[in-house]
Parts: sequence; structure tokens; C-alpha cells
Amino acid sequence: SSQADGGASVRVSEALEARLFETRQHSLDLAEPLSAEDMVVQASDDASPTKWHLAHVTWFFENFALRPHLADYRIFDDNFNYCFNSYYETLGPRHPRPKRGLLTRPTSEKVFAYRKHVDDALRRLLARNDIDRDEVTRLIEIGINHEQQHQELLLTDILALFASNPLRPAYQGQPVGLDTAEPTPLNWTEFPGGIVRIGHSGEGYSWDNELPSHDALVQPFKLANRLVTNAEWLAFMEDGGYATPTLWLADGWSAVNREGWESPLYWERSDGGWSQMSLQGLLPVAHAEPVTHVSYYEADAFARWAGKRLPTEFEWEVAANSTSKQMEKSQGVLRPQRSDASQGAGPKQLFGQVWQWTASAYLPYPGYRPPAGAIGEYNGKFMVGQHVLRGSSCATPSGHSRATYRNFFYPHQRWQFLGLRLAAEVE
Amino acid sequence: SSQADGGASVRVSEALEARLFETRQHSLDLAEPLSAEDMVVQASDDASPTKWHLAHVTWFFENFALRPHLADYRIFDDNFNYCFNSYYETLGPRHPRPKRGLLTRPTSEKVFAYRKHVDDALRRLLARNDIDRDEVTRLIEIGINHEQQHQELLLTDILALFASNPLRPAYQGQPVGLDTAEPTPLNWTEFPGGIVRIGHSGEGYSWDNELPSHDALVQPFKLANRLVTNAEWLAFMEDGGYATPTLWLADGWSAVNREGWESPLYWERSDGGWSQMSLQGLLPVAHAEPVTHVSYYEADAFARWAGKRLPTEFEWEVAANSTSKQMEKSQGVLRPQRSDASQGAGPKQLFGQVWQWTASAYLPYPGYRPPAGAIGEYNGKFMVGQHVLRGSSCATPSGHSRATYRNFFYPHQRWQFLGLRLAAEVE
Amino acid sequence: SSQADGGASVRVSEALEARLFETRQHSLDLAEPLSAEDMVVQASDDASPTKWHLAHVTWFFENFALRPHLADYRIFDDNFNYCFNSYYETLGPRHPRPKRGLLTRPTSEKVFAYRKHVDDALRRLLARNDIDRDEVTRLIEIGINHEQQHQELLLTDILALFASNPLRPAYQGQPVGLDTAEPTPLNWTEFPGGIVRIGHSGEGYSWDNELPSHDALVQPFKLANRLVTNAEWLAFMEDGGYATPTLWLADGWSAVNREGWESPLYWERSDGGWSQMSLQGLLPVAHAEPVTHVSYYEADAFARWAGKRLPTEFEWEVAANSTSKQMEKSQGVLRPQRSDASQGAGPKQLFGQVWQWTASAYLPYPGYRPPAGAIGEYNGKFMVGQHVLRGSSCATPSGHSRATYRNFFYPHQRWQFLGLRLAAEVE
Amino acid sequence: SSQADGGASVRVSEALEARLFETRQHSLDLAEPLSAEDMVVQASDDASPTKWHLAHVTWFFENFALRPHLADYRIFDDNFNYCFNSYYETLGPRHPRPKRGLLTRPTSEKVFAYRKHVDDALRRLLARNDIDRDEVTRLIEIGINHEQQHQELLLTDILALFASNPLRPAYQGQPVGLDTAEPTPLNWTEFPGGIVRIGHSGEGYSWDNELPSHDALVQPFKLANRLVTNAEWLAFMEDGGYATPTLWLADGWSAVNREGWESPLYWERSDGGWSQMSLQGLLPVAHAEPVTHVSYYEADAFARWAGKRLPTEFEWEVAANSTSKQMEKSQGVLRPQRSDASQGAGPKQLFGQVWQWTASAYLPYPGYRPPAGAIGEYNGKFMVGQHVLRGSSCATPSGHSRATYRNFFYPHQRWQFLGLRLAAEVE
Ligand SMILES: [Fe+3]
Ligand SMILES: [Fe+3]
Ligand SMILES: [Fe+3]
Ligand SMILES: [Fe+3]
Repeated sequence: SSQADGGASVRVSEALEARLFETRQHSLDLAEPLSAEDMVVQASDDASPTKWHLAHVTWFFENFALRPHLADYRIFDDNFNYCFNSYYETLGPRHPRPKRGLLTRPTSEKVFAYRKHVDDALRRLLARNDIDRDEVTRLIEIGINHEQQHQELLLTDILALFASNPLRPAYQGQPVGLDTAEPTPLNWTEFPGGIVRIGHSGEGYSWDNELPSHDALVQPFKLANRLVTNAEWLAFMEDGGYATPTLWLADGWSAVNREGWESPLYWERSDGGWSQMSLQGLLPVAHAEPVTHVSYYEADAFARWAGKRLPTEFEWEVAANSTSKQMEKSQGVLRPQRSDASQGAGPKQLFGQVWQWTASAYLPYPGYRPPAGAIGEYNGKFMVGQHVLRGSSCATPSGHSRATYRNFFYPHQRWQFLGLRLAAEVE
Repeated sequence: SSQADGGASVRVSEALEARLFETRQHSLDLAEPLSAEDMVVQASDDASPTKWHLAHVTWFFENFALRPHLADYRIFDDNFNYCFNSYYETLGPRHPRPKRGLLTRPTSEKVFAYRKHVDDALRRLLARNDIDRDEVTRLIEIGINHEQQHQELLLTDILALFASNPLRPAYQGQPVGLDTAEPTPLNWTEFPGGIVRIGHSGEGYSWDNELPSHDALVQPFKLANRLVTNAEWLAFMEDGGYATPTLWLADGWSAVNREGWESPLYWERSDGGWSQMSLQGLLPVAHAEPVTHVSYYEADAFARWAGKRLPTEFEWEVAANSTSKQMEKSQGVLRPQRSDASQGAGPKQLFGQVWQWTASAYLPYPGYRPPAGAIGEYNGKFMVGQHVLRGSSCATPSGHSRATYRNFFYPHQRWQFLGLRLAAEVE
Repeated sequence: SSQADGGASVRVSEALEARLFETRQHSLDLAEPLSAEDMVVQASDDASPTKWHLAHVTWFFENFALRPHLADYRIFDDNFNYCFNSYYETLGPRHPRPKRGLLTRPTSEKVFAYRKHVDDALRRLLARNDIDRDEVTRLIEIGINHEQQHQELLLTDILALFASNPLRPAYQGQPVGLDTAEPTPLNWTEFPGGIVRIGHSGEGYSWDNELPSHDALVQPFKLANRLVTNAEWLAFMEDGGYATPTLWLADGWSAVNREGWESPLYWERSDGGWSQMSLQGLLPVAHAEPVTHVSYYEADAFARWAGKRLPTEFEWEVAANSTSKQMEKSQGVLRPQRSDASQGAGPKQLFGQVWQWTASAYLPYPGYRPPAGAIGEYNGKFMVGQHVLRGSSCATPSGHSRATYRNFFYPHQRWQFLGLRLAAEVE
Repeated sequence: SSQADGGASVRVSEALEARLFETRQHSLDLAEPLSAEDMVVQASDDASPTKWHLAHVTWFFENFALRPHLADYRIFDDNFNYCFNSYYETLGPRHPRPKRGLLTRPTSEKVFAYRKHVDDALRRLLARNDIDRDEVTRLIEIGINHEQQHQELLLTDILALFASNPLRPAYQGQPVGLDTAEPTPLNWTEFPGGIVRIGHSGEGYSWDNELPSHDALVQPFKLANRLVTNAEWLAFMEDGGYATPTLWLADGWSAVNREGWESPLYWERSDGGWSQMSLQGLLPVAHAEPVTHVSYYEADAFARWAGKRLPTEFEWEVAANSTSKQMEKSQGVLRPQRSDASQGAGPKQLFGQVWQWTASAYLPYPGYRPPAGAIGEYNGKFMVGQHVLRGSSCATPSGHSRATYRNFFYPHQRWQFLGLRLAAEVE
């Protein structure tokens, strides 16, 4: 469907090219504070090594963009399809996920060379006039967004690794001082409900799971203006939240007992209080900051304890579409920040702090169809057993947030920047 | 809230009393073909022993109806609250679920005596004029419906037990001959969609999870007139269904490989064909009968293979509400039956054959609130990680089916009578 | 020892026949206090149901004696070889051990009929003159001894079952009163060591693992005159025995932490003291009685704490051979008894109380060869990873004890009547 | 052996000092072919990362020699006792063994600095005249031997890591060509048995588990002149060795089925034959080379198949003491070598090829006492559940082999260089 209507226009846009190489460079920037040792180890079955992330996103471009569209492309290493295919059954057998941390070879140096090899080829591809521009544009966009997702995972996986280390290393310099200011007071915005438009439409990138755009019926609801804070979470804990079975879903209560949960992930007692391991190292829990590293089970129990509930993903999207406020940015500080009372009324902290658990199971939208080919395995096959999170987190790369975005994790998972915002019925 | 408007009318209705003791007797009838040995053993962690079912439903009446409402009621045995409480955290500690099969004591004779003791007390309760009639009526209704649910579980748990036995015993006499007739031809009914009323309203019993009745927006859809058959499932198998990862949700494909699935549960190869263990013993797979004992993962993969999808629970309910057809009855034959072409157009086999997996996760309806007290643990706390099934099965007791009924199981579970019906978009 | 000196003498001895049917009857006597429900359930993977024991020992006679030696013998049920073969690979596939408790069919009544069928056939076999008398005698002897072993297991497996039951049922009537007498004072007998004869020789029955009789070199040693008591074990516990890693073998310390051990099996705290579940129900721990239900790890840790060690199996055998004292008998009381100071000097409580852990791994004697055929799987294939216990227990049938007997269990196992006696070097 | 006869003689011997720093250097030499990435990863729960080995042996010297004996010694890093204590309960809590591979910090550079810091301090310690020379000598000897043990583990753990890598990297350059020569023909040496002296006595280093030297009674036996070869193992495989339950100990047969064993560890089918991953990479199985990476279960099954048995550790020691032959050396080639027929009669390949499984459980010698203090945890607490191996392997450092040496592993373990030599009774 590419149509060369004039001279140089069959080339993909320079804006896309710029974003591509900015994204590619950003991954390297994220790896910069890490040693080769830090980059090879896998913290848990859920996490992957930094080196693996760096190679896998590169393999993704090689496999989806270069192989089909750059005629003279030379595969960097035939073994890499086995090593760095994540879960694409269509693309052949692959190294078992829980053993990604055993891949001391290829070395990190070779992976960096792989990145360069692929970047060079991408440059060549994007300079060509004789390609299927629309398709290549689509694939490059997917590749950029894919790499951005792995940038967030890279950070949360490094946090998991460093939290397992008795030295509790910091990935990033510590904040100057503990922010002791109060959070924005909690208040509620009412929404009238009705038939609303859900899902992505119009311009800009979206994943297939945000499609098709469709109507949904939403009851009137109200939504908290800010995220649940650590102070509120401590009140839940002090009120016996983790010891009161009637607050919990049955599977959640099993998890509490099986795993011995008594606080969010990475919290530990110290000097009569609590600290939490973070990308800035082990720091005292800051009361006004949004709580993070809580599972769906915990978020749901907290909401029940508070006499409220979690919003559905549709409610969240309605609220996000209602505000003209610019996306809040994390500005490079890799921890969720206190909400700022000066920002006025309406829901805040929608983006850039923590992903927000919703009451919605991760399921296909009506009429959803995965894309053809291996790329169709990207999102659709995970549509069971997980819950949707909305918004974005302090670890989400700039430009990767939007109101229709659907993130998803299993209800027991906690190692991402996962928090919550309360909702309630309108009486 | 009971108001005595006339002489004997403060007593609960005789119709309710009759249903109560019919239900109580039916449990004994179901246990009748079983020896004391059959009744004590637990086939798996999911299943419970017959004796435990018989005692637990009795404990339910004792605890929820007799203790609070029959002043002079004498607890039969103080240990039974520990032994026969299933999962009510509010009611104290209980015997671990996977160890229910270790309870050789109390003996089955003592459990029968327990049933009689409670039945006698229930009779005394229902004969009284000085009770809170509405509340007692509510509790007896819940107790009846609770016991009916366990009657179905009793049968599926016995099937699980007998299927683990190398002698492959039959619970029920075998059908006279293999039914070789063809099933009703597959055709589709279109539904226009729109805003529909979902959930229970008006007269009759419902569980709290069918409430509140509320509006939902449904897109146009079409629904198969009958259940998927064994013949269709065999075609899926012969086409490599269990060996084709792209047909499966990722968690489903994991289950296939981890569990070694290559057919529905209880199927085994014999004489070049397939047989399936059933309550009538091990019998050849009957091609026209509805497939049963398939997981959500399998149902979803089959639908994808067929180029269709599973209906949502709302679609299913819309279709069920559209038909004036009487509920089909299983008439005591404890296996799903072939659909009968003579029954005319429109969706058939909605009830009484197999529960039908839907695409809907089991979640609360908008505005759902669990009832107060321990009974509030009945349904609400299971609203995560499971999928809704609609209809009813050949093992569901008579009078326990309705269009708004929501059954739910985990996507990997197969030991119930679980099957499927296809749906599709309207082009 | 076959002597064909005249007419009827080729028949097996009447003494053997009498012992056979006494043994067969004793199994039924042991099952007498149990209901059909008690007999079908399997308490743990290590344990077997009573019904299975009763059938398996019968299958043993059917398979090893009747099939090869009684020409017209009719197999009772072709399925039973699958159901009741324990671990004889030579004899075909078998029902998985951890699922023996699922065998509600064949019913216990059918198993009793099986026993009668086999007993009748055994009577016919033993009445014949035309058999290979020596071989039949050998097989009947093995069958008797095999059934005796299972009689002990039947009791310990029932104890495991009843200990898992919240009602804590008693298999046997309780003792009249708590024996508060003091145990025999602890003293030591010295043995000079030297080259000693180990293993079975001469008359009487032995298992193949007691053969061949051979010379061994034993250093001088001394041995305690009695078993370690509960009072001594309590002193170990109160001294932090279960919390002091340096007392334990590394694998033992892992077991302590993994399993949460803080006392022998079946002990539970009650009223400020300790009780222990027993075949007489839950009773206060009697200080003078031998400690029982301890693992090798615990026995070894206790000995280290006491500044002593466990005897080797050779030392134990030397001591047992040194005493002319009659075997002590348990006289039907199924719990280990206090030692009686009046019995004079020298090692006591060698037999009839608790099996005594030795420091010896269970390995073949020099020149050991298992018997030919399936019977060769009886003992030899278990000669790795286990430790030898010597003596016998309160649950060992009369006539089944001797100085050369080698019992064996894994070092973590505790559900048998397992205790210890201390040994030490001679300074 | 302390002799304060004059001026400088209270210093430890220069020979010891030389050996110490040769040993320390050898560890660095072994790490030389590895990247920082290779050194940080843990291949399995049994294995440890190279970096951890390098740090742990250093911590051993710091903790056992420097802290108690070098007054002004400055601990390098207080966290290291937690990080690098292996299993000494006496020395406080430690990082969990299965998580050693998460220790990306301290970095390998810091670990090398740690080694230098400790080496410098050791040099200062050894230069002093005012120390308890005998005790320091003892501790340095232990430290040297300890580091040598870890040198072997370092190699086998790297092999485990590289064998898990789809690139199958080689640690060491490959041999020039496949050695196709025939092995030495198998023959047998007879030994008369009798009372023999077992265990270490006289000069030179030994571990505490080789003590005390004591008499043992050994029956006449014969021993194979060489190790079992790959060709012989292939014959076992081709004869259905891995599919014949009667050849196996019961626990071994379980392992075969549970683990899916059908060949030694690291064998894989290729081009119609077999290859084995080795420190030289993936190479065709060389028929004349000793079989390696077999478990005790496999060794025992092979011996039974061959109509022979494994020697006891005493028999092996008798044979080793009988030969005046010099220790065979592996000369740096890290794979077991073909035996050389030119070497004459008598047992060969006793040392330097593969450790040889014996029929003996790993148990204390009569009168064994572990040394006082934390060092007492070195060997004694592992004396349960394992089997003794004798000899040494191609990965054992030079100077670390002797006739009385007792190595030990669990019967299922295979990742070390473990093989076997046959024994038999004398008829
Ligand atoms: Fe990816
Ligand atoms: Fe229930
Ligand atoms: Fe047996
Ligand atoms: Fe060490």
C-alpha cells in the first residue's frame, strides 16, 4: 500500500527514524550503570537479564523488519534466534525462559556488536526508496514500542536483582532528602457514565489489544484524584490488613499465607520502621509517595478495607479521557513521586508514577483479532488469568503512555511498579 | 420483617418444607449405590468425599439456620464445625481441604445420624410460629440450593474416584446400546444486540453473584444451536489440535505440555478408537454426544481452530432469555445426551447436558455486594482467576437451572461436566 | 532338609501349616477394630491402607506359592495382580503406590473373600503329597514372614491415619493409668570386640539380607542397658536440641527447618506439657517410656548431644548374641513399655519395644546375592540411602524377632516405632 | 613437629609458603579463560559461580587463619562473611546456597582485590616469628587443600554452565584428533584380604574423615586393572541397560524414570552417534576413554549388568596401597584419558582420570571425632546418605591425590568427573 507520490517521499519518515535511534540509544543508556556481571544474571523466573533484553529487542527488529524487508541482510548469528526468541512459537524452538540467566555466552560485548550490526542494517533499510513503506513503518513502530516495553522491564528486573543482593546496591543516585511534605488531600471526581467509546482510534500508535474501538456502557462512578499512598497502606497494615481473611479474595488469602506476605514487596523492617528497596537503594518508606509493588490481591483487599473498590478499566479510561492535563513526567527519577496539591482538581497521577490495578480481567475487546503472522502472538495469547493495569509508571519510557493503553499482569505479581487508585459507586 | 396476617401463616410455606426434605432425601438417594468405602475417599485435591459432602451440607443447615433460629437446638457434635466447615474463615479453623479424605471418623453411620438429627431439628424449626419467617425462609432456600450444588459435586467427585480405579466401576447402569444417530445439524441464530438486562430480577431464587440486575451493552452476535460434539472434537484432535501451539492461549499451551493433554479428561485409547470413563463406566466415545470434561483452555483452542469464538456470559444469557422452550431435562441419565433434531429452530441444549464455558471472567456485577455475615463468603471471594460457565449439566439437580445462573471454574479444570457452544460475530 | 521317608511325610510339616493359618488369622484380628472406611484410606505416601495390606499379602501367596505349585489353582481376579503387586517389576505394571488409597473397589468384602479363596487353596496345597516340599516350605515361610512384616505396617499406618484425624481416635483401649515409675537406671555393658560372626546361620528363618554369615572386626565398645526415654528426650528438647545446628548432620538440620520439627512425630503441646498420639489415642508423654517416632537424624543428634553415639549394627548384634535373656514380649500392648529394673544387668529392651537406629547404612553383606526370580526384588534393591535398625517393636508380631534381623528406613522417616539406644567407645 | 631450636625457625616452612601461593595463583589461572559474566552465574543448585569459589576460599583463609592469628588484620569487607560463608553454622547466617548466582555485587574486580588483600596479609602472617607455628601451619595446610577442592569444583561447575549454553562453548582448546586406539585389555588382580590397615597415618596431609587409622577385615577380592570405558557403557546402553528395572536399585530406577536418563550426563545424540559435552566443548564420545558423569545408581546398575560389583572403599584402598606405581598425572588435559597398555600389570588409572564410585556409604571411621571449632563442620556433618568415591579425577589439582582420600557425593549426582572400576569376589 506504499505509494511513491513524488521524489524522496517513499522513504519512511525522518521523525520515525529519529525516534527509532533515540529508543535504541536509550536502552544503552539504561544499561550504562551496570557491569557485565549485572547484565547477565536473571533475578527470578519472571525477570530477564539486562543482556537478554538488549539482545531480544534487537532480534525483534532483525526478525520482523530486516529479514523480510532488507534483501541483502546478513543474519548476525544463526544461534541467536534460539537464544533470543522470547515466546514466538511460530518462530521455532527457543531457550527456556527460566534459564535465560545461564547465557554467559554470547558475551555482552558480542551483544553490543549485535546491536550495532542491526542498527546499521536498520539505517540502510530506512534509507531505501524501494521498500513497502507502510509495512516497514508499521514494523519499526512496533519495534520501537516493543523496545520501550523492555526498557521498563529492564529496570524492574534490575531492581529485583539488586533487592536480592545483601549489599542492596543502588542503580541510581539517591534523592537529596526524604520528602516529608503531605500528599494532596484525597477527593473524588464524579463521572456520569453512559455509553462511552473505549479503545484506540484515530492517530498514533496502539497495540492490537486496544482495538477495536467500541462502545461500552458504564454506570455512574467516582474516582479518587490521586494514588493510594504509603501512609494509607501503613494504616491498612496497622489495622491488621494482612491478618484479616475476610478482606481478601480466597486466592489472595492463600497467597498471603503461602508467601508470608505482610507488606508490599521489597519492604523490610528497620529501626522500628519500614524501608523499601528501590532503584535508589534501600530507603525509608516515604509516607506521601504512592504505594508500589503490590499485587492485585493486595490492591483489592486494600480497597475492600477502605470501603471502596478498584475502578474498571473502562472507568479509568473515561476519567483519563476527561482531563486535558498534560501527561505528568517522571523526569528521570525512577521512583513514584508524591502528588502535588498545586495541580488543581480532577484525577492526577494518572501516568508516570505506578501502573494502576483495575477490576477488569485482561480479555479481548469485542471483535478483537490478532494481527496475522508471528506478531499475532504478541498480546492475544495472554488473554486469560491476568488483570488489566492502566496508566504508566516512573519506569515507563517517555512517549509510551496513553489513555487506552492496557498493561496486564497476574494477580499475584508484584515486581513491577504496581499500585492503585480507588473508585466507588455514586450514591 | 415477617408479618403474621392470619392464623397459621407465620410458618414457612409447606412448599418450601416439601422441597427441603425432597432435597435432603435426594442426597441420600445419590449415595445409595455407594459403599462406605466409596464414600470416604477423596479422589483429588479438587474433589471431596461423598461422606464429607453429606455432612458438610448438613453442617450448613445446622450452622446457618438452626443455631441462630432454633433456641433449644443441641449441637450434634462440637468437632463437626472443624471437620465440615468448608471455607468460611468467619466460622473458625477447619480441617485442611486436601485432607478431607483422611476423615474415616466420624463414620458414615454417624454422618447419617447427623443428617437425621439435623432433619428432625429442621422439622421442628419449620413447625414453629414464632420465628423470623422471612429470614428462616431465606436461609432454608440457601441451604437447599447449597445442597443441590453439592449433589452435582458429589457425582463429579465420584466419577473422579472411579476413573482412578483400575476396575473402572460404573456408578449407574449402562445405557442399552450405543446411540449411533446423527446430531442435529449445526446452525446459527442471530441476535441483534443492544442494551440488555442482565442478572436476576423478579421472583425465584438466585445467588448473590447474579445480582444486581443491570443493563449491559451487547454487540450483534450469533450463537450455535447446539453444543460441540465428540465427533467435532475428534476432528480437532485429528487435525493436530493438541499439537498446534498457535491455537492456544499461552497458559493453555503450558498446561497441554505440563499435563500431557491429548484429549478431554477421562478419554483413553482402546481398540483403535477412544473410550471415555463416565458414571456408566468406560464406554466408547459416542460421536453425536456433546463433548465433556474439557478445560477453558481447550474450549478456547477449539473455538479458534473452528474459526469461531466462545460466547460471553451476557450473550449466552440473552440467547437463553430469548427462548420460550422448556428446560430440557436429563431424566436421571447422568451423561450428556445427543441433541434432538426434532426440537425445532433456535438454541437448544442450553440446560441439562454440560456447563458451557464462556469468554467471560468471573467478576462481580456493577454494584455487587456480598450478603452480610459468614454467608457473604459464599461466592464473592472467588471472583478472580476463574471463568464463567452458563447453563447446567446432566448432573445438576432438577430445579437448579436458570438463565442467569453463573457457575465458575479455573481455566485448567476439567473434572466437572464442562463443554462448549460456539459463537461468532455477525458480519 | 527334605526327607521322603515313607508315605505321608512328603507333605509340609503340620507345624508350618499351623503357623501359616495363625498368621493369616492374626491379620484379620488386627483389622477387627476397624471399619471398612478405616481400612480403605491411605494416610500418606509412605503408608498403605489396611485393605491393601490384607490383599497384598494374599496376592503374595497366590503369586509365589499357588500359581507355580498348585496345578489347578484358579486366579481369583485377574485385576488383582495390577492392584496388589507392591513393587515387583518382574511381575508387571502395578497401581501407583501413592494412589493405593483410591482403591475403594474391590470392596473390603471382596478382599475378605479373596483371603478365603487363597486360604482354601493353601490348605489344598499343603495337603498334597506330590509337591516339591522343600520349595513349597520355603515359599510358605517367606509368605508368613512377609505377612508378619505387613502386620506391623498395618498398625503403624493406622496410627498415621488416626493421628491425622481431628477426633484422635484410639485403635486400642487405653492403659489403666499413667505409669509414673522410674525407668531402670542407665548403665553400660562393655564388649571386648574382635573378630565376630555376623549374620544368620544355622536353623530357623532369615531374610536374604541377613546372609551370608561372615566375619567382621569390631572394636571394643560399650552399650547402654536400656533405650533412651521420653524424659531424656525432653531434656534434649529443653536444652535447645532442635535449635542447635551443630548437633545435627547437615541433611538432618535441613529436615528440621524444612519440616518444622521441634519434637518427635505425633507429639503435641497440651496443658503446658506434651502429649503423643498413639494406638491408644492421645496420651500424656510418659517419662519412663522409650522415646519413639524419631528419625535417624534426630537419633544421631540426640546421641551427639549426649556425648555418645549410635551403635553399629554389628555392635548391636554382638550385644544381642551375648545375652541369654528371653525375648521380651509386648503381650499385646501396642506401645513401648518402661524397662523393668528387676530384670538384672546387661542390655535389655532389645526386642519388643522400638526398633533401634544404628550408625550403619543398609548395604549388602560381603558376598550377598539376592535369590533368583521375582522374590529377589524383596530386599536387595533397597540397599542404598537407608539406615539399619535392629531389634523389634511393640508392633512386631510374636515370633518375628531375632538378633540378626535387619530392618531399614530412610533417615528422615518417623512413622514406624523407631527409637534408639546409645553406645560409646571404651576409653 | 614444631621445633623452636634457634632463631628464624619458628616461622612456617618456606615450602609451605611456596605451595600456598602456587595454589592461590592456580585458582586465578583457572579463571583466566573466563569472562566476568562466566564467573558470576550459577549453573544449578549444586554448582557455584567461579567468582563465589574465588571469594569463598579467600574468606576461608581470612576467617580461619588471619582473624585468629594476625593481630592487626583488617577485615576486607564486613558483608563478606554473609556472602561467602558456605555452610558453617557456627560462623553465622549466610547467603542461601541456591542464590549464589545473584551476587553480581561485589564485582569480580572487587573479589580479585579481596584475594590480593588476603594474600598480602597471609604473606605478613607467614613472615612472623611470634605465631603459634604448628597451628598456623595446620590452618594454612587446610586452607590450601580446601582451595584445591574448590579448584576442582570450579571446573565442574563451569562445565555445568557451558553445557547449559546452546553455544556449547569450550573452556579449553580441543584435542588435536580423536584418539581411536584401543584401551588396555581388561584383566583382574586378586587380593588375599585379611586384616588391613585403613585410613591415613604417618606423614603428609589428610582430612579428618581419613582418620583414625584403624584395622579392618577384608575378604579376598579381585579388582579390574582399568576403568570402565565409554565403549563398555555403550554396550550396556545398547543392551537396554536404562530400560531394564531389574538391573537397578529401586531409588535408581525412580531416578531413571523421573529424570528421563538414557545415557551419562552431557551425552547427546548427534549424527547417528553420541557426543558428550566436555571442557573441550561438544565432542564425539571416545570409545576407549573412561566413562564419566555417571551416578552411583548408574555405576551400580552397570556392575550388576556386567555380573560384577563395585569395590568397597577398603578394597580400593588395599589395591592402591599395593602398587608402587607413580601417580598418573593429567598434565593439564581436563578430560579422562585412555589407559595405556604399556604400563604393565596391576590396577591402573587409580588417580587423575575419574573418581571411582565405591559400594561404601560415607560414614565415620571407628572412633572418628571432628576437629574442635567451626572447622569441625568441614566433613563430619555430611556423613549420611552419600557414597564414597576413591582416587581422583582429571580436574583434581596436582598434589591433591592419595590412597586414603575419601570423596563423597549423593547417589544421584553426576556433574563431577565420576566413573567406576569393577570388582568381584574371588571364587
Ligand atoms: Fe519481547
Ligand atoms: Fe459448600
Ligand atoms: Fe510386601
Ligand atoms: Fe568450601
